[in-house]
Amino acid sequence: MTTLQDIANALGISKGTVSKALNGASDISESLQKQVLETAVALGYTKLRRQKNEKKKLCILIENMEYKEELHFGYEVILGFRQMAEPAGFQVDIIDVTEELQRSISYDVFMLQNDYVGAFVLGFTPKDAWMEDFKTSHTPAVLYDNYICGNPNISYVAIDNQEGMDLAVSHLKELGHQKIGYLSHDLKSQIMQVRYHAFFDAIEKYKLTADETYTGCSYYITQCMQDHLPRLLNLGITGIVCSHDLIANACMVQCQQLGYKVPDDISIIGFDDLPICAYTTPPITTIRQERIQLGKSGYYALDSLMNQVSIGTILLHAKLMVRQSTGIATTTNQL
Amino acid sequence: MTTLQDIANALGISKGTVSKALNGASDISESLQKQVLETAVALGYTKLRRQKNEKKKLCILIENMEYKEELHFGYEVILGFRQMAEPAGFQVDIIDVTEELQRSISYDVFMLQNDYVGAFVLGFTPKDAWMEDFKTSHTPAVLYDNYICGNPNISYVAIDNQEGMDLAVSHLKELGHQKIGYLSHDLKSQIMQVRYHAFFDAIEKYKLTADETYTGCSYYITQCMQDHLPRLLNLGITGIVCSHDLIANACMVQCQQLGYKVPDDISIIGFDDLPICAYTTPPITTIRQERIQLGKSGYYALDSLMNQVSIGTILLHAKLMVRQSTGIATTTNQL
Repeated sequence: MTTLQDIANALGISKGTVSKALNGASDISESLQKQVLETAVALGYTKLRRQKNEKKKLCILIENMEYKEELHFGYEVILGFRQMAEPAGFQVDIIDVTEELQRSISYDVFMLQNDYVGAFVLGFTPKDAWMEDFKTSHTPAVLYDNYICGNPNISYVAIDNQEGMDLAVSHLKELGHQKIGYLSHDLKSQIMQVRYHAFFDAIEKYKLTADETYTGCSYYITQCMQDHLPRLLNLGITGIVCSHDLIANACMVQCQQLGYKVPDDISIIGFDDLPICAYTTPPITTIRQERIQLGKSGYYALDSLMNQVSIGTILLHAKLMVRQSTGIATTTNQL
Repeated sequence: MTTLQDIANALGISKGTVSKALNGASDISESLQKQVLETAVALGYTKLRRQKNEKKKLCILIENMEYKEELHFGYEVILGFRQMAEPAGFQVDIIDVTEELQRSISYDVFMLQNDYVGAFVLGFTPKDAWMEDFKTSHTPAVLYDNYICGNPNISYVAIDNQEGMDLAVSHLKELGHQKIGYLSHDLKSQIMQVRYHAFFDAIEKYKLTADETYTGCSYYITQCMQDHLPRLLNLGITGIVCSHDLIANACMVQCQQLGYKVPDDISIIGFDDLPICAYTTPPITTIRQERIQLGKSGYYALDSLMNQVSIGTILLHAKLMVRQSTGIATTTNQL
């Protein structure tokens, strides 16, 4: 257990100065304070002085994900996390993380400085500066949809995308579809890669034709619709799995504009079950990410890390939501 | 919520008879009792009458795994599970499961009949009759090292084998090994398959030669040593990853008998960190499965299932235990 004295020794300053620096006393220069915090982190010092009865604090670090309104993806994820954390006695702060913040301070120092004992991290991408920190950081963090190999202080929480794609493909196969296509965002994010490979695993498991020409990936949805959808339709594809619901929705609208009936001519299936899926015409069959449960699992993982049970991965069961965008296959979709 | 009346209606008998049958009254024939239990399960009835203050009961279903003494693999797994479950108010029974039991009664009926609300399942193989039941069962169960796709009432708990193989291969690469072999039991069990594929993923990640002739898999360890080890040595392999510690131990002994020094001529790495690894000559470098934590994760998963948080998978971080069976690569192992 690292003490204030250890930090003082390492820096050759007094214990009193260390204590002042850690508590942000105004008579300590900013550069010394930073030096003390960074040394504290390097030595594995994790507990700042805490007033008696003061609540332990967790934070949700969020970026690239809307959460303020009920229809936003992040809303229920955060709710689920708080439903577990707050009854367990934690205060939960929500922090909108910017690039500047990540560049100005390391993850561990940020956590120590603000007295957070653990973080639930939502919406980060591999480009974020703190993603590099997470490879070696000390303060427990649970990452939604991002996997870090080899750091015992980090967990990965997600839906079981493998199972999700399995459910999607087997649903289409049961409806008689033999030629199944796949449309996706480009494969730069980890989750898009995972889903792409999971799609092919399912195609092979159900002994369907695994053909890369049956797929199309673009950064922009409109481009995906323009470059790939007509090609897939011309190939005689009768069912399309989409890497997420917004692509499924665009795909459905585009098919209809091209004169194809959904699901009579072509079946379309999404992924995520965004609230919109129930209210499109027709409503979209999709794979549900149970958002409240994702938040709760985030807390389960964080609780385990804070109790020295080094859970690396939690995957939630995927759930098929059958609506009206999928139906029995016609032998061909040719109009 | 299914009631006694629902069961009575389904069978065309009185509610009183249903109640008696569910509570094992002696004036109800065995065949009727079985029929009532099976109907109860089919209708999703899960709670038998419970005395006030009587503890809720969980069970550990165990097979093919020793657990009674401290050096057995199962000992600490069970301990970790109980360390979480008992303070939470559960009674935990340990059941040695036989083939006869599995053939005589379905999993769900067994659980209902014995008033168990959840199970932690250790040591099962795909051949077990209840593995078929788990595809559609209703009573929460957490399976160690066995994955069932698509049943929201089942979780899978294991070490992150992918991460484990990554740590093993990167450790050997850091020591300068370029030609790395792999020895394993045959690939009939799920976990042996997972580790085999994880080994090749790691080999590719670290840009080493992925060559199936560098591997050998046999049902019997002695056969593996006879058929594959000399071949690998002749190929100039300088490091061998083994799918588990007992193979690593046999491999080490066999190499020594053939006149190879471990680790000077050949590095050997195991998997699991069985207690034996610290006491071999030399002690075996291996990937640790933190057994207490596996047990605790089993409880985390079961607790989540019992609280309608449908966790499908929990993977624990793997940990590299560096001992003396691995060392710096010589350019070749040729004696």
